[in-house]
Amino acid sequence: MGERRGRSARMQERSDRNKVSAPYVLRRIGNVSLISDEAVAVIERNADRILDEIGMDFRGDPETLEIFRAAGARVDGERVRFDPGWCREKIKTAPRVFTQHARNSARSVQIGGNAQLFAPSFGPPFVHDMENGRRYATIHDFREITKLHYSLNAVNHSGGVVVEPVDLPVPVRHLHMAHTHLTLSDKPFMGAVTAPERARDTIAMAKLAMGEDFVNENCVLYSVVNTNAPLVMDETMLWALKEYAKAGQCTVVSPFVLGGAMSPVTVAATLAQVLAEVMACVSLIQLIRPGAPSVFGTFFSPLSLRTGAPTFGTPEGTQFQMCAKTLADRLGLPFHSVGALTASKVPDAQAGYESQSQLMGAVMAGVNFIIHATGCLEGLLTTGYEKIVMDADRCAALARFAEGIDFSEAAQAMEAFKEIGPGGHFLGAAHTRENFESAFWLGEMSDNGTYEQWTAEGGLWQHDRATARVKQILRDYEAPEMDISIRDALDDFVARRTFEITGEKA
Amino acid sequence: MGERRGRSARMQERSDRNKVSAPYVLRRIGNVSLISDEAVAVIERNADRILDEIGMDFRGDPETLEIFRAAGARVDGERVRFDPGWCREKIKTAPRVFTQHARNSARSVQIGGNAQLFAPSFGPPFVHDMENGRRYATIHDFREITKLHYSLNAVNHSGGVVVEPVDLPVPVRHLHMAHTHLTLSDKPFMGAVTAPERARDTIAMAKLAMGEDFVNENCVLYSVVNTNAPLVMDETMLWALKEYAKAGQCTVVSPFVLGGAMSPVTVAATLAQVLAEVMACVSLIQLIRPGAPSVFGTFFSPLSLRTGAPTFGTPEGTQFQMCAKTLADRLGLPFHSVGALTASKVPDAQAGYESQSQLMGAVMAGVNFIIHATGCLEGLLTTGYEKIVMDADRCAALARFAEGIDFSEAAQAMEAFKEIGPGGHFLGAAHTRENFESAFWLGEMSDNGTYEQWTAEGGLWQHDRATARVKQILRDYEAPEMDISIRDALDDFVARRTFEITGEKA
Repeated sequence: MGERRGRSARMQERSDRNKVSAPYVLRRIGNVSLISDEAVAVIERNADRILDEIGMDFRGDPETLEIFRAAGARVDGERVRFDPGWCREKIKTAPRVFTQHARNSARSVQIGGNAQLFAPSFGPPFVHDMENGRRYATIHDFREITKLHYSLNAVNHSGGVVVEPVDLPVPVRHLHMAHTHLTLSDKPFMGAVTAPERARDTIAMAKLAMGEDFVNENCVLYSVVNTNAPLVMDETMLWALKEYAKAGQCTVVSPFVLGGAMSPVTVAATLAQVLAEVMACVSLIQLIRPGAPSVFGTFFSPLSLRTGAPTFGTPEGTQFQMCAKTLADRLGLPFHSVGALTASKVPDAQAGYESQSQLMGAVMAGVNFIIHATGCLEGLLTTGYEKIVMDADRCAALARFAEGIDFSEAAQAMEAFKEIGPGGHFLGAAHTRENFESAFWLGEMSDNGTYEQWTAEGGLWQHDRATARVKQILRDYEAPEMDISIRDALDDFVARRTFEITGEKA
Repeated sequence: MGERRGRSARMQERSDRNKVSAPYVLRRIGNVSLISDEAVAVIERNADRILDEIGMDFRGDPETLEIFRAAGARVDGERVRFDPGWCREKIKTAPRVFTQHARNSARSVQIGGNAQLFAPSFGPPFVHDMENGRRYATIHDFREITKLHYSLNAVNHSGGVVVEPVDLPVPVRHLHMAHTHLTLSDKPFMGAVTAPERARDTIAMAKLAMGEDFVNENCVLYSVVNTNAPLVMDETMLWALKEYAKAGQCTVVSPFVLGGAMSPVTVAATLAQVLAEVMACVSLIQLIRPGAPSVFGTFFSPLSLRTGAPTFGTPEGTQFQMCAKTLADRLGLPFHSVGALTASKVPDAQAGYESQSQLMGAVMAGVNFIIHATGCLEGLLTTGYEKIVMDADRCAALARFAEGIDFSEAAQAMEAFKEIGPGGHFLGAAHTRENFESAFWLGEMSDNGTYEQWTAEGGLWQHDRATARVKQILRDYEAPEMDISIRDALDDFVARRTFEITGEKA
């Protein structure tokens, strides 16, 4: 208990010196596990049986099949089967904890252990704001959203495809996305996974920004590959996995599962399937480069069997996540999973309820890397500008929650009771005055005032207040510093690769 | 694990026979505790020191002081001090678990142990709906809201002052509130605490509905008394506490605390203060009638020291609640605390985020009786019609969550993997068809469909869909059956007491 201020205080001081907020949350609370030791044994045995008796398809990539065959897996066409325990053995070379370095070292993040961090939504083709409604996203949106996340202290990561910049040709989008993350932010970011040459481009740009030797020796990119559940890994994702593994960069293996369609219609069965898929793919990473940073990821949405639509903020979503975290701990892998997901099309109460449910579930579970922590609308088809700042406020609250409770003598405030006594009030107590600033968490996006105040200020709903806050943040935004020679090198790289890829000048 | 269906299945069958939903949730998950054994010892020692060195004021009631004096507490004027451990000893006669009986026995609820139930908001003077806005509540609103809660399966209790019927004179409001709970619902309800004769009237009406002998021998009323924090119990609350204790009815002792004003500005200090207040007051109940049902209650809202306003959905609110539950367990008392609180004036995203945060925190903590689980707006100054049905949907989700995960062989679905194999999909699998209905929880208030569907249906935000649902429920409402002689007796009682109290015909 007395240790509360130790590591955090030092981290805080360091952060203050670098004028950035704490780069991630150090959890001082336990994780909620919903799975007994007996049930863990059942799920692990079932995953082993799935890999042994059914196996997993690795499609379109002979090299992968050869790597598995050489290491002793049973390869039959593109189907690979694994003896019970084989994958678990191979995974042992993966690090339990590692650092993803940002170009500003004060923003580098720990992945795994008691570290917890919040990252933006990934992949939406649409954006939404209250003034312009829903529309296809552009590179302008990508840049504005990257600025927002750079400015929001509760968001620890710049993310990856924060929106799809559909106004750019597909083959060059990755260049502009990496360029944006590297120039408009100095938080860590994610690598492209849509083609092996795009992974190589992203690595090359990271080297321009952070130095070739540094990138060769350190993890600077965090990239997510999805299995094609059930039990398939396709060639695009395999190639990306291989590129990042060879480069010693981090790969998250995250089965994308719509429960009931891509997995059986229960939490227990989906857990076994996901565990099987992650074990097989992380084994592959470790065979390619033992010790390469590897993360256990999940994305699980129960399908509504009434309408065929994915659902969010459900009890099963959180149950699944809490159990999967336990399975990841058993493998000694950091755990990556979803945050503030919602099916709502707009930043309404449904969005609030569902997002808080998923996000709080993730924090209670002890998810290390919380992806989709900000902005999600419409089950990740859309990112909302207002939703980003609304979600970020809840990330800040949950960061505080995860830091635990101060039970120090100062916090016990026994002198204050003697000073005030029965029927008094504590507003004027010495203890209150001394702890005024740090005492209770206070959000930016909640209106706590009286009805009369609120009415006098226009009676704005939260999403309307959020519109003003988005504008304010973008007005106040200042780009992080970057050496002009690095900036020029990145610009040149994008121009040269654009010409090589499209035959056109950028 | 294999036991999952046992007790619940039997309970479900029984419920089905009586055509009511399960009367409460039987938790099959653990509680989240945020307090170490060492910190528990610190808080308990501090509470003992507060009671010993500072003491608590019991104001305006000589009988209470005499009860304490006779039992060995140190009485000095209205200040009562207690030797360390004295209260804990007295509390031992309180039951760990008891039943609050409803007039329909199929709706009786267990209080304590692994039971969890959701109850309406208590006390708001205003109501809000999207068509009419915010206004003072009337007895008509009280009745409509009671009908809503009767109809919502996720809500296990009819509550108490679900809104203040301000169109009725204060001295007779309690008559109409009890009459409404007893005639328009058959779920358990709460007793009046604003004057001793009102408590007696409520008990008398319960006797008319459920039989005098039954009420003398069983708990049929659940009533909340608030301390006047810090460390004061005033005469109104004392009188109510005494009436219910003498009648063997349940009393919840719930210190109402705005942190920073009514307690010191930390979670640790507030815990010690609240524990002290609850121990002193429950001791009094047990001295009046050993074995009378007594509940450890909390209401804690951190004050914004920037604006002086109470805040909701905060990290400290949930931290406090989780720790207080551990303290209640140590005393062997059921635990009552807050649910879906929000400071928002309207059913917007703020309301969603904050309400889900508080409600999910309560469920994770293992709160037995979750008060204010539905309807809260504006920090309990207002109940929202739409908010009631929106919150109830989240109660249903969290009930499912608390029931835990099925790890049975059927749920493991190993045959489905063999049937489908890599790259297939499970929608047509035998296992999916067999478990279609019960598989995943599906809410009433979330729109999960496509953007195009949603737009075609009017592009309604959740609060607008909720307006329609409120109207539908009230249209479909049918009052529970009641013997005509009982109904007449209740009508006569209200008429007679109204005349006695006001000198006017009802």
